Amino acid sequence: MRNIRIGLIGCGVVGQGIMRLLKENAASIQARLGGTIEVRRIAARTPRKDRGPYVPTELLTYDPEEVVNDPSVELVIEVMGGVEPTYGYLKRALESGKSVVTANKALLAARGHELIELAEARGVDLYFEAAVAGGVPVIRVLREAFASDRIVAVRGIINGTSNYILSRMRDSGSEFAAALQEAQAAGYAEADPTLDVGGGDAAHKLTILATLAYGARVELSQVPTFGIDEVSAVDIRFAERFGFVIKPLAVARALPDGALDLRVHPALISKKSVLASVNGALNAVYIEGAAVGPCLLSGLGAGALPTAVSVVSDVVDVGRNLHSAAGGRVPQRAFRGDHMTTPRVQDISQHRCRFYLRFAVPDRGGVLGKLASALGNHDVSIEQMVQEGHGTSEPVAVVMLTHPAHEGNVRRALDEISALDLVIAKPRALRIEEL
Amino acid sequence: MRNIRIGLIGCGVVGQGIMRLLKENAASIQARLGGTIEVRRIAARTPRKDRGPYVPTELLTYDPEEVVNDPSVELVIEVMGGVEPTYGYLKRALESGKSVVTANKALLAARGHELIELAEARGVDLYFEAAVAGGVPVIRVLREAFASDRIVAVRGIINGTSNYILSRMRDSGSEFAAALQEAQAAGYAEADPTLDVGGGDAAHKLTILATLAYGARVELSQVPTFGIDEVSAVDIRFAERFGFVIKPLAVARALPDGALDLRVHPALISKKSVLASVNGALNAVYIEGAAVGPCLLSGLGAGALPTAVSVVSDVVDVGRNLHSAAGGRVPQRAFRGDHMTTPRVQDISQHRCRFYLRFAVPDRGGVLGKLASALGNHDVSIEQMVQEGHGTSEPVAVVMLTHPAHEGNVRRALDEISALDLVIAKPRALRIEEL
Repeated sequence: MRNIRIGLIGCGVVGQGIMRLLKENAASIQARLGGTIEVRRIAARTPRKDRGPYVPTELLTYDPEEVVNDPSVELVIEVMGGVEPTYGYLKRALESGKSVVTANKALLAARGHELIELAEARGVDLYFEAAVAGGVPVIRVLREAFASDRIVAVRGIINGTSNYILSRMRDSGSEFAAALQEAQAAGYAEADPTLDVGGGDAAHKLTILATLAYGARVELSQVPTFGIDEVSAVDIRFAERFGFVIKPLAVARALPDGALDLRVHPALISKKSVLASVNGALNAVYIEGAAVGPCLLSGLGAGALPTAVSVVSDVVDVGRNLHSAAGGRVPQRAFRGDHMTTPRVQDISQHRCRFYLRFAVPDRGGVLGKLASALGNHDVSIEQMVQEGHGTSEPVAVVMLTHPAHEGNVRRALDEISALDLVIAKPRALRIEEL
Repeated sequence: MRNIRIGLIGCGVVGQGIMRLLKENAASIQARLGGTIEVRRIAARTPRKDRGPYVPTELLTYDPEEVVNDPSVELVIEVMGGVEPTYGYLKRALESGKSVVTANKALLAARGHELIELAEARGVDLYFEAAVAGGVPVIRVLREAFASDRIVAVRGIINGTSNYILSRMRDSGSEFAAALQEAQAAGYAEADPTLDVGGGDAAHKLTILATLAYGARVELSQVPTFGIDEVSAVDIRFAERFGFVIKPLAVARALPDGALDLRVHPALISKKSVLASVNGALNAVYIEGAAVGPCLLSGLGAGALPTAVSVVSDVVDVGRNLHSAAGGRVPQRAFRGDHMTTPRVQDISQHRCRFYLRFAVPDRGGVLGKLASALGNHDVSIEQMVQEGHGTSEPVAVVMLTHPAHEGNVRRALDEISALDLVIAKPRALRIEEL
């Protein structure tokens, strides 16, 4: 079979990993695909930098336009990142009939539907396995393996930085700031960690997962997003005492009325749950199908080579479509464009779950009664309670687990409590996820 | 797009699950595939039996030939099981240009290469996701998601019956025979459990996994297979004491010289390993890629609906190939027929690992020295040892963990020990798997 001619935009660590895989595994890729993958042009910001043995200098250019406009290129890999000007490059590639493989979750979350609809209109492919959970093949599984099932819920640990930090805080007892520094020193967190620890990166990925699971046009702005910076070491310790660990979760769930429940936040989950042992920088996605039941996928969510495996396996897949003239063979959002829906997304105030609440209060009588009354005023009932520090320090910590309650009611109760001039610090509330 | 016209051979619980999915999820399947899936004919051993609301009586026939010979059928689903006469039906289906989706691991292990080569020659598809690990999409992941990587090892818990029994023995302290009865009562074990507890079923599946991971023509007879009936409650207890659990493993591993290490046996694995928490009837496959690193997939390995999800998702996949006239788009063994190899399979005597050894010996001096000497005579060195029962009962149990040793040497040492007229029962040896 004929060769597949590709271009690469972006030649940082992931781009170099892609070039390395294409070289080192050329024989086995050919044994699977039936043709070779030939790199024609590579756009890199600083093309004169030495990129080691896998990147032929003569293919390098400053200008992504040269890759996109090269008529011999059938497929463009994009690993440069960012929404602009990347969107423009990929749009032009698709318009000129090239297929695209990208790892760019931010771009997909912001403008994925436009790009995919353009690809569908042109009968070319836009694949993005590497955009969620790195080397874990969750896109392919949702898009194809469970094509015959209805997805009940998808719950994932899909930000390795946040998982690493919370795991460190648990293992060493350190506070968030110290664990973040460790993560930065270990290369698991960027100099500006906001997108990771604030939940934004996981929200990007969740819009992609929700789109695939439900054939839903989901906007990033519809995802209530909370970062792990609201978790303290003491919360991890209390959670442990109640039989929980705290994990950075992203959740997409179908509600009985057809609406979607979408959330990104740190959550208490039972120590016995399958996601509880997903530690360090690992990613995992736990899918529940109506018929297939539970399915867990876990692995490395980042890193040059795991990401490159997902990218190059997508290239092989698209290459097969090029060989068979079967572009657009699989709908890129799992559902065909004319069947995509725009379901209601539940307001976070309507979310109902058990809550973990922590209050810092003065060590004196009557305080517990006032807390309980304020919660009761808003239909929030207490399942268990512990008080720590009585007689030894002030403030004392009062920690409660509630029965299932609406988040709006919990927030109103906490507002009432905050106004009571009773609590010494802002009350802490974390959601408990049952899985 | 046009409808896909299929026939079904076998209408037991899995067949009925397939019919149910096709009916209940018809709308979402159409939203993904772009056409409907139309069942034209169903072969069942006792077609007059009531099969509930999902199986239209007018489609039923006694005779699989009627399905295979129906010129309107483009794709045959086979869930009748067995090697003969099933092989003949599927051969004729492929010969007449029909694609096949099957859940039949025994048939694939015995005659899969012939059938796949026939499919390849005819340019049609033979898909079999349901043949390994039920609803867990390990076939698709090995065949496509990791197409750009080289597989270092695949380790799986792929027999739910064995996993259920060992989990019960661990939880309740019961012996194998009692746990087997419980498994039978709970519907997790057949009346004749030999194929499950003896490892044969896992060996069938392992040949399939090894074929996909390595593009290797592997014969069932090349897989050293040991059942879980060699595990006693006391072994589970001792394993626990040393930090291990005992799991029914199937292993396919590439050796440095290109040979394959294939094995099915119960193994001690660290309590901390990812497979240690895969309990009950769950299945899991742990794949290590050279580039992608570790990837765990787990879920329900059996049951009508999980199996049906894998079958019907395969039908959707093949249906897409029918729509695009892209039959044979993906090589069914992950590697193209002309690139399949026949590597050497390592003799089990050459396998090197740590061993768990248990001896029942008289409670008298000098025994330990004789055991240690016999082991030392064959280059088997002891890492740790415990003796239990001293002064309270006879025989006493002596349990050792060895340093890594060749299995051949361990067997020769145990033969020497058995000949010593020193041990009261046959020594027990179990492999320790590092993962």
